[in-house]
Amino acid sequence: MTTRNHCLERDAQDPLASLRDQFDLPAGVIYLDGNSLGARPKAALTRAQQVIAQEWGHDLIRSWNAAGWFELPRRLGNLLAPLIGAAEDEVVVTDTTSVNLFKALAAALQMQADEPASAGRRVIVTERSNFPTDIYMAQGLAGWLDRGYTLRLIDSPEELPGAIDADTAIVMLTHVNYRSGYQYDMAATSALAHDHGALIVWDLAHSAGAVPVDLHAGGADLAVGCTYKYLNGGPGAPAFIWVPKRHQPQFRQPLSGWWGHAAPFAMAPDFRPADGIARALCGTQPIVSLALVECGLNVHHQTSMQAIRAKSLALTDLFIELVEQRCAAHPLGLVTPRAHAQRGSHVSFTHPHGYAVMQALIARGVIGDYREPAIMRFGFTPLYTSHTDVWDAVEILRDILDRQDYNIDAKRDAVT
Amino acid sequence: MTTRNHCLERDAQDPLASLRDQFDLPAGVIYLDGNSLGARPKAALTRAQQVIAQEWGHDLIRSWNAAGWFELPRRLGNLLAPLIGAAEDEVVVTDTTSVNLFKALAAALQMQADEPASAGRRVIVTERSNFPTDIYMAQGLAGWLDRGYTLRLIDSPEELPGAIDADTAIVMLTHVNYRSGYQYDMAATSALAHDHGALIVWDLAHSAGAVPVDLHAGGADLAVGCTYKYLNGGPGAPAFIWVPKRHQPQFRQPLSGWWGHAAPFAMAPDFRPADGIARALCGTQPIVSLALVECGLNVHHQTSMQAIRAKSLALTDLFIELVEQRCAAHPLGLVTPRAHAQRGSHVSFTHPHGYAVMQALIARGVIGDYREPAIMRFGFTPLYTSHTDVWDAVEILRDILDRQDYNIDAKRDAVT
Repeated sequence: MTTRNHCLERDAQDPLASLRDQFDLPAGVIYLDGNSLGARPKAALTRAQQVIAQEWGHDLIRSWNAAGWFELPRRLGNLLAPLIGAAEDEVVVTDTTSVNLFKALAAALQMQADEPASAGRRVIVTERSNFPTDIYMAQGLAGWLDRGYTLRLIDSPEELPGAIDADTAIVMLTHVNYRSGYQYDMAATSALAHDHGALIVWDLAHSAGAVPVDLHAGGADLAVGCTYKYLNGGPGAPAFIWVPKRHQPQFRQPLSGWWGHAAPFAMAPDFRPADGIARALCGTQPIVSLALVECGLNVHHQTSMQAIRAKSLALTDLFIELVEQRCAAHPLGLVTPRAHAQRGSHVSFTHPHGYAVMQALIARGVIGDYREPAIMRFGFTPLYTSHTDVWDAVEILRDILDRQDYNIDAKRDAVT
Repeated sequence: MTTRNHCLERDAQDPLASLRDQFDLPAGVIYLDGNSLGARPKAALTRAQQVIAQEWGHDLIRSWNAAGWFELPRRLGNLLAPLIGAAEDEVVVTDTTSVNLFKALAAALQMQADEPASAGRRVIVTERSNFPTDIYMAQGLAGWLDRGYTLRLIDSPEELPGAIDADTAIVMLTHVNYRSGYQYDMAATSALAHDHGALIVWDLAHSAGAVPVDLHAGGADLAVGCTYKYLNGGPGAPAFIWVPKRHQPQFRQPLSGWWGHAAPFAMAPDFRPADGIARALCGTQPIVSLALVECGLNVHHQTSMQAIRAKSLALTDLFIELVEQRCAAHPLGLVTPRAHAQRGSHVSFTHPHGYAVMQALIARGVIGDYREPAIMRFGFTPLYTSHTDVWDAVEILRDILDRQDYNIDAKRDAVT
């Protein structure tokens, strides 16, 4: 039986333990929601002061050049690239995940339309349990193109092989499911899509900074993702899009704003896409939020995705083990796969009163979140979560469940 | 002849003079580029600290509800609305101007397509001298819709009446031209479009906070704009989109992300647009940059657009007068209209060595900017620019020109 002392010992031997000091975490809180909003790197406050007081306030318009504002999407993309197996000049940090997905899907549909053998393909395959905005953006694009594109929604990963066929233009999947924590085998799934002549677009929202990703080895065609979860970029921080060099010449997308122009300051009246990854850009970016993304990436560069993954699995294994031991009397159902290869960095359990139990946990300082239907999510960010945090969180969960110390009539907030 | 003492007297009587204290402006600088990047409200630094340290760092995920992050686009939209003649719940601050223009154009085309009498209209009329991203976004949208939409570019406002016909689906214009400073008569131009059955989409990038705008009285159908120029929202701060209540039920746009869903946290697999202005939203917004927009709006709410306009015209009149008097020996050409009704809040002069002269001005602390071809732009933000600033700036310009103290081989920066 694992004890709290075992957890303390593991923390003492944890090579990532010292990184926790680089984050501002409030006293009395066990933060298990880094899969929704990453904690604040301490450096973010100083960096914001520098951007706001010096670069904006003092240097004013000159900062577009002098402070490198205009280059930020590309510079941060290059900082992020090694975390996801991307090469230099293949990633930009920009816009939102939704908007980037629109660009990626539009470009992928166009690549298929331009390929005589694939021009008739009209189906986008994805999962019903995908994060809704991914489905909505695909619906929005398909509905507007007047070319008869439709979505085919699978109900579980097992249905995927049967769902991809000669009509499939794109397979669009989130690598780690936001609700279940299920992780796809990227290489095998990409190969499956390619075997049928489809392109594959990956959403790395719950993967980037959380699990090792090798987009090139994984055979991905295009990818998007989020910086405000495991990358700790700040609330709603700009997202990213990856276009591998092999697809860049064919990558065309309809959000053809001036930042994606080959010569944005020539002020020419015709759009001519930039060479390379800059063609994935659109409009002027929110510099303060964008600049803070660097602070989170800098913490990541002090360790490796392998070390993060080792600790992530240790934490999620420990959480599953402790919940199943200590809360065995309660109707909790593990949603997340036990197999390491199929697991991301969060663990979800169902409970009939999942929303109420989560509110009780939050009131006691254990911050996870709730997702319909009946799912309590617990995210484990190896950069700042300790084994003892896991122990203490489970102990509070056990106490709440044993004493039924939750309000099943709890009013729901707008954002849950 | 106006003297510097006259300028000092006007400053002493200026009802807006005290607002300058609310901005951080570096010593030794006369900032005439608020039309490109507004100066920093002092309050922005404190607000950023609050958002980053307290809301993000301490309250973490709870801030989506507790700090009203999720409501920010709508709350800021309502703060901005009175500055542009919009009603409550008609504006959201979100995304970039480019992306918002894409939404507006797509929705307007769809409104026309849904109207039997207008369904065949295939032309978007705009100006060749419009800000390039506006043209590019329209090109991107038109090119992707496969419905034969084309752009018709006019070369001057006088060509507009002849360019709008029974084929015109949309007239898309920037209210105040980014280069010339020419201001359209919104009501007359909207009426012209409507007389021909076209819808009109206005870009207020150089109008919002700079000139009085009354979108309802002006007959606008849809509008977008920018918060980082005269609204002093911060570098690249999120933009805005206006959809009047009369068009909201018909407003549908392809960037159908989860923030535009009727029930974003129901996580339903089908997109159902929110009622009202929220359907103009798409993905998760960059909260730090977004929050700072409020600081600039708060300064505006201490005065009125009428007072701002009166001072703006006084400053631009003074600048034109002084340049024409004191720099009469030099080949400067006024680009901006002399007629008040046709002028925004910046003044542009051509000079054969415009780029070099502007670099010399900047080196001497007079910050304007340069736009191809040969145009020096000088922006006048009544909230923080004084009559004496105008005098001093012209005196430095005169000195540079008289002594030919500029380097015609000056290397161009990436962002000019």
